[in-house]
Amino acid sequence: MSTSFDYASANLSRSVNELFEILRIPSISASPEHSVDVRAAAEATAAALRKIGMEHIHLAESKGGHPLVRGDWLGAGDGAPTLILYGHYDVQPPDPIEEWLSPPFEPEVREGRIYARGASDDKGQFFAILKGLEAVIGAQGRLPVNVKWTIEGEEETGGSSLERYLADNRDELRADAVFVADGHFPKPGVPAVLTGLRGMLYVEIEVRGPSADVHSGLYGGVAPNPLNAIAWIIAGLKDTNGRVTVPGFYDRVVDPSQTELESWNQLDLDEGQMLREEIGSRAFFGESEYGTLHRIYARPTLDVHGIRGGFISTGPKTVIPAVATAKVSMRLVPDQDPLEIREAFKNRVAELVTPGVEVSVRELGVDPPISVGVDGRAVQAAARAFMRAFGRQPVFVRTGGGNPVLGAFQQYLGVELIVSGFGLPDDHLHSANEKLDVAQFEGGIKTTAALLEELAD
Amino acid sequence: MSTSFDYASANLSRSVNELFEILRIPSISASPEHSVDVRAAAEATAAALRKIGMEHIHLAESKGGHPLVRGDWLGAGDGAPTLILYGHYDVQPPDPIEEWLSPPFEPEVREGRIYARGASDDKGQFFAILKGLEAVIGAQGRLPVNVKWTIEGEEETGGSSLERYLADNRDELRADAVFVADGHFPKPGVPAVLTGLRGMLYVEIEVRGPSADVHSGLYGGVAPNPLNAIAWIIAGLKDTNGRVTVPGFYDRVVDPSQTELESWNQLDLDEGQMLREEIGSRAFFGESEYGTLHRIYARPTLDVHGIRGGFISTGPKTVIPAVATAKVSMRLVPDQDPLEIREAFKNRVAELVTPGVEVSVRELGVDPPISVGVDGRAVQAAARAFMRAFGRQPVFVRTGGGNPVLGAFQQYLGVELIVSGFGLPDDHLHSANEKLDVAQFEGGIKTTAALLEELAD
Repeated sequence: MSTSFDYASANLSRSVNELFEILRIPSISASPEHSVDVRAAAEATAAALRKIGMEHIHLAESKGGHPLVRGDWLGAGDGAPTLILYGHYDVQPPDPIEEWLSPPFEPEVREGRIYARGASDDKGQFFAILKGLEAVIGAQGRLPVNVKWTIEGEEETGGSSLERYLADNRDELRADAVFVADGHFPKPGVPAVLTGLRGMLYVEIEVRGPSADVHSGLYGGVAPNPLNAIAWIIAGLKDTNGRVTVPGFYDRVVDPSQTELESWNQLDLDEGQMLREEIGSRAFFGESEYGTLHRIYARPTLDVHGIRGGFISTGPKTVIPAVATAKVSMRLVPDQDPLEIREAFKNRVAELVTPGVEVSVRELGVDPPISVGVDGRAVQAAARAFMRAFGRQPVFVRTGGGNPVLGAFQQYLGVELIVSGFGLPDDHLHSANEKLDVAQFEGGIKTTAALLEELAD
Repeated sequence: MSTSFDYASANLSRSVNELFEILRIPSISASPEHSVDVRAAAEATAAALRKIGMEHIHLAESKGGHPLVRGDWLGAGDGAPTLILYGHYDVQPPDPIEEWLSPPFEPEVREGRIYARGASDDKGQFFAILKGLEAVIGAQGRLPVNVKWTIEGEEETGGSSLERYLADNRDELRADAVFVADGHFPKPGVPAVLTGLRGMLYVEIEVRGPSADVHSGLYGGVAPNPLNAIAWIIAGLKDTNGRVTVPGFYDRVVDPSQTELESWNQLDLDEGQMLREEIGSRAFFGESEYGTLHRIYARPTLDVHGIRGGFISTGPKTVIPAVATAKVSMRLVPDQDPLEIREAFKNRVAELVTPGVEVSVRELGVDPPISVGVDGRAVQAAARAFMRAFGRQPVFVRTGGGNPVLGAFQQYLGVELIVSGFGLPDDHLHSANEKLDVAQFEGGIKTTAALLEELAD
């Protein structure tokens, strides 16, 4: 009997050709003129699921949004684990269109790479999962675990239909874990599995001084100036070593595990390259007692994103403005509690208020931090699966930014997260000449097959 | 022989009627559609000067601006003092037009008040000076001092033709003092003479961090944030007691004289009223060890007038911006040197720069502070003149804001400044129902007559 890996290798070129059919559909979710194409991609995805033997396939419509492709295979029985498989069939616009070497919706393989919009983000990746299931079925006649598919069409537009669907269909989607493959290896040859991601508390501070703008010639020295006042507040929220001065801010911060810290060292981050090419400043700024990746992955921080107030056109004008506002976010890490931080933040701001101004703090958004950890059953199964498919243990990384869908999976379904991906850093997501290496596609198929087998053990 | 005061009283109603002729001309310098009216007002002013016996009358044209009305009377001879008389024949737009009880350019007297746009600012005031000269000539057949008129038409638009004229015609305008009557009594019955005014240094601070905007999810904690950096800079320029922390900032500050401090106490400033009705904040802010008027008149300060940077539209966005700017002015007092302060400011900013950002300071404007003092011959003559005309010594006030024309008179001509006015605080300048009390108009005529006589003694 052949293995799922044999099946995957033997059927690779057919799999690539079948992926091409989906890549040819310009399912640009941001363009209303492509709404027919977006639906066509949903239907093609559903058809592909049907072809490998999935059941209960249907498009879950959302008012004003794009349909969610659903489908299950529950033949492993109640005693077996259940895995949700996530992906998205929508793509970014192909801009800048003139820089593509081959048309974005006419996929082709050059030098072992599949070039097309969506090749890596995310059609090629969810299709690798699909082909992974096909490989297991091909080798064993069945799957060793139950699966439930959720392939959405609003990922590139930040739509929230999937989050609502998860909230509304908890019983239908009861599962043990979710497998999200929408990312990339941190460097060639090194897979990665996410062990946490920062959350966020986003607020707007408003400072009011005079009831209307006044003239600094007439009242400078006696009128409270909201711009000076907001500067004192912002300056007092974080010290110049990058440490947030909100009392209790760091109390619940959980240090990364030794496994994670060792993983991050394996990434051999080129800090000079990051500074020069990604940030473009002459030095880093932040808590210097922690490493760069530690700070991005696992330290909370506070940044001002915009300040508005007073006269900002050309030339001099001597107004003391009535009002100034600042948008401020705090990136939060496990186990910080956003609501606890919000109250502590408000109290700290109140301490920093200077005479004559009135200050209010308004919450604009909150995303709790997500902790996955390295010890979960599904994460460990994924680690073994990557080892089998790529011959290398994944590194355990985190990410600095929020993702509402991951939070929703955790919040509404209580499932363990396996967040990973088969792309490479040079896949040119959201840019011209997006690609997915055929070898990564094949490895993704095998990783998925191995994951199903490992989860069942 | 009758006195100039007798002449002024006897001819008052004719003087009001002649003023009406000039008030009827809608010489709104800000409106291009009123340029014919502005010129008509200049010509009417010249004609009025001619009528009282002035000589060398002409309109000094300025490219792109409104003409300066010139005219002299030099019959007092080389041994007598020479006084420049300043005024402006242009007016503000009459907005809000619907709130006027009588049409703004159809002057009328109601309850002892002349209502019209320009009644107090400044047609009624320079016309009082003109009638003061007429009164002296009427009583004595000649003036005891030489006079040189400069009545401009760009005061309400901030034009600089007069400044250039002063710079270019120093010999022609050689004089001992200038009399500027474009202000008002601090309260009814209490005249005031200006003894100083604050200057200004206006700069823009630019802070650059990342070479382009970056995402705080990816780089929060390691990328320098120009908005946080500019807040630390601003917060570090002034402490929360309102004291500027630029080293040496206060070194050359001259305390007001005892005469001035006593004058300010006489003003019985209603601080509650200023706070509630003029500023509209719930408390003052500033150096609490100094009185309110002391702070406005004679203390330097620092205010931020605008901050620009990052995302300022509605909602949350997590950008770390590439650049942030702040407009900052320092009000300066005698004997602070703007250029010395500028260098000290730049050095202080450099101390406040945090890692990873680059900061530059650009000068947008500079006006030196002006010191008049209470002891000058002309100011003392003006004090006696007000005593004779209004029966009350003037208080010696300062003003918190700059005025480039006053600086130009001092800088180019080296003359002593007599800066005062005959209006009252409720004259509704720049607003509806502008007025000048007939009694103030008459007092202005007599003050001017007395000033000429006192200057000659």
